[in-house]
Amino acid sequence: MSVTHCHTHKERHFAASDTVRDLVLGMADGLTVPFALAAGLSAANVASRVVVVAGVAEIAAGAIAMGLGGYLAARGEIDHYHSERSREFREIRDLQREEEREIVDIFKGYGLDRTACEPILAHFRKDHEAWVDFMMRFELGLETPQPGRALRSALTIGGAYIVGGLVPLAPYMLIDRLQPALSVSMVCTGLALALFGAAKGRFTGVSAWRNAVQTVLIGGLASATAFLLAHWISAA
Amino acid sequence: MSVTHCHTHKERHFAASDTVRDLVLGMADGLTVPFALAAGLSAANVASRVVVVAGVAEIAAGAIAMGLGGYLAARGEIDHYHSERSREFREIRDLQREEEREIVDIFKGYGLDRTACEPILAHFRKDHEAWVDFMMRFELGLETPQPGRALRSALTIGGAYIVGGLVPLAPYMLIDRLQPALSVSMVCTGLALALFGAAKGRFTGVSAWRNAVQTVLIGGLASATAFLLAHWISAA
Repeated sequence: MSVTHCHTHKERHFAASDTVRDLVLGMADGLTVPFALAAGLSAANVASRVVVVAGVAEIAAGAIAMGLGGYLAARGEIDHYHSERSREFREIRDLQREEEREIVDIFKGYGLDRTACEPILAHFRKDHEAWVDFMMRFELGLETPQPGRALRSALTIGGAYIVGGLVPLAPYMLIDRLQPALSVSMVCTGLALALFGAAKGRFTGVSAWRNAVQTVLIGGLASATAFLLAHWISAA
Repeated sequence: MSVTHCHTHKERHFAASDTVRDLVLGMADGLTVPFALAAGLSAANVASRVVVVAGVAEIAAGAIAMGLGGYLAARGEIDHYHSERSREFREIRDLQREEEREIVDIFKGYGLDRTACEPILAHFRKDHEAWVDFMMRFELGLETPQPGRALRSALTIGGAYIVGGLVPLAPYMLIDRLQPALSVSMVCTGLALALFGAAKGRFTGVSAWRNAVQTVLIGGLASATAFLLAHWISAA
């Protein structure tokens, strides 16, 4: 029973990891960068309206740039997979001895000799499709890409960025005066970063507390730097 | 000869890919988001100085958030690797039959039966270290993490973001009037995006032209959206 459970867990962990990575990618930057930008502009003492304009422009640009970037990265991985696959087929057809030596080399790395690989080689000589599948995973370390992954990745990253970015910006939309808006934004964003960090920690199996503290520290460091630089430039 | 060359190529491709991915990640966003933010603020007709303040704040925040985010992601991968490795050691010690079945299952996926795996199983029973190494790579698909990777990743992403972000911002630093600064910034950033896209395409083995066009289109789309949203808000 416990073994079955443990396996299910592993597989679930694997299937979810791409989406979680995308969510984390978009949400972490979405919470941090618009908040730091707003804090920086507050230091320069601009009108609250300017903070909202800059914030909305940044959120839109960030969501599109990261979302489309994620789309193209995923498309690129799919193209790469297929071009490597065609190459493996060619190499197995044209350079069979070399490819056999590659299999033996892989197993040699684990202390096995050619004799131990012989049944595998004999099988692959009759089944090139299986041979290519084996090389893709065990020589090149490439997984079969999931269909629809590119679009899902783009929407997850972009959506998470927008949701994250609206947390620090909403107070500036609702409160006209700069200083109270900054204070409310700091509290909301600090809480959101802590919750997000803790959730991320839980999901990836590291300490929730440690992750919450780390995430808040990154947000704080980015914002403090943006604040000080903006203050320094606008005073100069 | 050609085979040796082809192998060297493969390995080079693999060793470089992490750094290239980090460079691309930082540079793509660094060129796009500060440019779009500046364009958006230009639409709201703020002072040129405000664009510079907002741009510097954004670049600092973005570089720190993405750089530290990359650092923590790489650290997380290292922790994950070590915790999975300890678990594999425990499982091989406590649930040896289950782990043997897992090896047979892996090879079954390529059309091999238990008899073909027997020499491998016999070897692994005597060498648990090799067995764990094999499971890490072939069951879980995890590579041994490179030492120093986390820090290198952080500096590469953050540095690329700063370099990228200064391209669209420099014209606003040097030119006082908003409209000419925006025009110069558009030309510089457009060229930089095209060059960056082409270089990325060359490196990842896809068409340089196609990549150049894609990268410019993403930057254009992000900026146009930021511009229109900012225009709409500041007119409202």
